[in-house]
Amino acid sequence: MSRPSERLKELGMTLPPVAKPLAAYVPYVKHDNLLLLSGQVTMKDGKLAYQGKAGSEHDIEAAQQAAKLCALNAIAVAADAVGGIDNLDRVLKVVVYVASADGFTDQHLVANGASNFIQEIFGEAGVHARAAVGVAELPMGSTVEIDITFSVKG
Amino acid sequence: MSRPSERLKELGMTLPPVAKPLAAYVPYVKHDNLLLLSGQVTMKDGKLAYQGKAGSEHDIEAAQQAAKLCALNAIAVAADAVGGIDNLDRVLKVVVYVASADGFTDQHLVANGASNFIQEIFGEAGVHARAAVGVAELPMGSTVEIDITFSVKG
Amino acid sequence: MSRPSERLKELGMTLPPVAKPLAAYVPYVKHDNLLLLSGQVTMKDGKLAYQGKAGSEHDIEAAQQAAKLCALNAIAVAADAVGGIDNLDRVLKVVVYVASADGFTDQHLVANGASNFIQEIFGEAGVHARAAVGVAELPMGSTVEIDITFSVKG
Repeated sequence: MSRPSERLKELGMTLPPVAKPLAAYVPYVKHDNLLLLSGQVTMKDGKLAYQGKAGSEHDIEAAQQAAKLCALNAIAVAADAVGGIDNLDRVLKVVVYVASADGFTDQHLVANGASNFIQEIFGEAGVHARAAVGVAELPMGSTVEIDITFSVKG
Repeated sequence: MSRPSERLKELGMTLPPVAKPLAAYVPYVKHDNLLLLSGQVTMKDGKLAYQGKAGSEHDIEAAQQAAKLCALNAIAVAADAVGGIDNLDRVLKVVVYVASADGFTDQHLVANGASNFIQEIFGEAGVHARAAVGVAELPMGSTVEIDITFSVKG
Repeated sequence: MSRPSERLKELGMTLPPVAKPLAAYVPYVKHDNLLLLSGQVTMKDGKLAYQGKAGSEHDIEAAQQAAKLCALNAIAVAADAVGGIDNLDRVLKVVVYVASADGFTDQHLVANGASNFIQEIFGEAGVHARAAVGVAELPMGSTVEIDITFSVKG
């Protein structure tokens, strides 16, 4: 298995810059060997790339791309926290909030857009516990928000 | 106080088989002495036993049964993770997501269906912190989804 | 920087009494140096001070006050857990659930009502990771529910 940084390169991807904190909270907090992240939305190049609800504005495939983008943003924050993606230990838990139109019940499929990407990058170290839920609305109309807990070395 | 395995027997209950992971995530992750579970829905015998929202398709009592079933499924996963229910240390945190019709605000009562059952099985070791929220939709239309964190020995 | 107890006094505020547990769950669980709280709603003097959804019954400013009240209740629980607010180590993670009318997407601004207050009280030790989501309904119609994880000494 390649290292995460090599997997990213093989996929032709780079980690986006980490967005500045908007308020009295920060992108991550380290506590012992836990790395707790703030929820990540579909930010790309300074604006939201996916807005609106799954099941109305977006079909499953687009919502999966939204979930993947949130995961990428989370990985960027985590990498920034430990001085590089290869210094992360493993992904522990992923909570996927999907802004859901009434009657849309495929949150687990949407969440796979994040889960599969995380495993693609981290391999065994990316296998995680997960909860996927359908919420009414998300900040700035983001289609997905993802909350990840990593473990870090030491 | 009986051991959890004895309490189950006294209640005439058995732990269901643990569902296979559906994607790049797993039913649980152990990290130090934390056991983080994936969200559990109302799966029973391979299909969802409770679908639809509390406050419309289901009254409080049925939704409480749905919450109890999610808790049972979570306990089964946790028991599987540590080689038997009696090897679990304690229940730390329970997050109960209730698919809620507009105007339904008894998520705390629904969540009691899980909390009371957990205490019935684990006694003092089952007393937990909890959050109960009402969400728009849940995977496959499940009425309840429950996300539990256990502690484990060593 | 003043101690948290002094900051409260300077703001002319006192911690409310901690509500009795309503069921088989408790206001907090300590595990190693983690302090996991139960979700806190807008309880004040024994009843909910803010009910109804942000974006319909409440504007952003009122919802921010609701979030601040939930944070105050959480701080009271945490202080009670460790024998006084000054014994808390730091705030790690804050999850803010905002009962949201359709089309209301300012959950992050509502959550600032909690985040800013937490930082005002705890200073550097109050800087936290955060997720803010918009949910369909909350227990007893509370406008906001907040779920905080603290670290404690030893």
